[in-house]
Amino acid sequence: MQLFIGNKNYSTWSLRAWYLLSKFNISFTELQLVLDTPEFYEALKSKFPVQKVPALIDAELIVWDSLAICEYINDAYLNGAAWPSEIAQRAKARSLAAEMHSGFAALRNEMPMNIRANRHVELSEQAKKDIARIDEIFSAQQQSYPNAWLFGEFSIVDAMFAPVVLRFKTYQVELSHAAQAYCQHVLSCPVMQSWISEALKETDIVDCDEAGEEIN
Amino acid sequence: MQLFIGNKNYSTWSLRAWYLLSKFNISFTELQLVLDTPEFYEALKSKFPVQKVPALIDAELIVWDSLAICEYINDAYLNGAAWPSEIAQRAKARSLAAEMHSGFAALRNEMPMNIRANRHVELSEQAKKDIARIDEIFSAQQQSYPNAWLFGEFSIVDAMFAPVVLRFKTYQVELSHAAQAYCQHVLSCPVMQSWISEALKETDIVDCDEAGEEIN
Repeated sequence: MQLFIGNKNYSTWSLRAWYLLSKFNISFTELQLVLDTPEFYEALKSKFPVQKVPALIDAELIVWDSLAICEYINDAYLNGAAWPSEIAQRAKARSLAAEMHSGFAALRNEMPMNIRANRHVELSEQAKKDIARIDEIFSAQQQSYPNAWLFGEFSIVDAMFAPVVLRFKTYQVELSHAAQAYCQHVLSCPVMQSWISEALKETDIVDCDEAGEEIN
Repeated sequence: MQLFIGNKNYSTWSLRAWYLLSKFNISFTELQLVLDTPEFYEALKSKFPVQKVPALIDAELIVWDSLAICEYINDAYLNGAAWPSEIAQRAKARSLAAEMHSGFAALRNEMPMNIRANRHVELSEQAKKDIARIDEIFSAQQQSYPNAWLFGEFSIVDAMFAPVVLRFKTYQVELSHAAQAYCQHVLSCPVMQSWISEALKETDIVDCDEAGEEIN
């Protein structure tokens, strides 16, 4: 199985699929491309209908989009274990994952993932609302599962929200105590630490993801 | 089971969940709200964490977001029958559904669903690329399943793309012959015709969805 990803410093969508595969110890070959270069589009064009990462090749099969890859892995390799086992919890987890998948555009535009940076950005009212909603999600789930993943055990929804935890760190976003506890749980995960440490070694610059003023 | 939806003339995301439930003959109560009114937000606020439609209440359970509702219905009521039964086809269908769920922003912004209108809009280059990609999806699937749903039998991916078929009709978008055959298949579906006929009876106007110049 081959997973095409972008720069670990910047590529939020790549992180999701990579995190799920790695956390569940599924063996895969990682093929890294530098975002927004001719080589990036060239490498993907011959294999995938959409030139975006993450993108997965599993024998004859190709799968693209972070959520679809997670669902595929859950389906083909994990016998459903990547979602909560109880149907009501699973429905809630899928609602949250889908909310992240199609939403929070202001937050995503104004606070690009940039793991190696410490930045200050002026946020729009909509981005502040996005942060408040995510804080509400994290803290509500921490009430049920203190110092744990959103639904107790690691699931796809944690992979979907992982990039936003890293954005909050880069831009030093103030969160409620409970939401901060969830972020801390994610950041202390060894698999996440491995992604972060590889991101810190990268030197490529993607200009459009370099928002805000550096904080020393 | 109660499904909260918006105006049938305009609400693309509502159509998806409504279409899936209706096409599979699942019994539900439809609760319609007029988009972007104080009553809309008031009705949803006490019940759901996000004030968007579609939103579903099933006994004690709440589910929001069109894709999450479809996955829940598939899971709880259809024993998986709302996705293709073969795993490779299912992975491809989920990739396409996810691509629609998070993508095609230019097309969605520039061509709001407006079933009762016939309009002309000047499209950006990105919107034209979005149309070309959707044409490619529809026509490739028609090669495998002529004059049928995207994966032969009706599945969640058809529900996800249903609004775009209606956009193409309103703005009289020129498509390849094969893509047009898929659109015709969708438009001739009795369940879709029922949604359209109810949309045509509506009289509320949502200004931000009234794009383009009327064609007589």
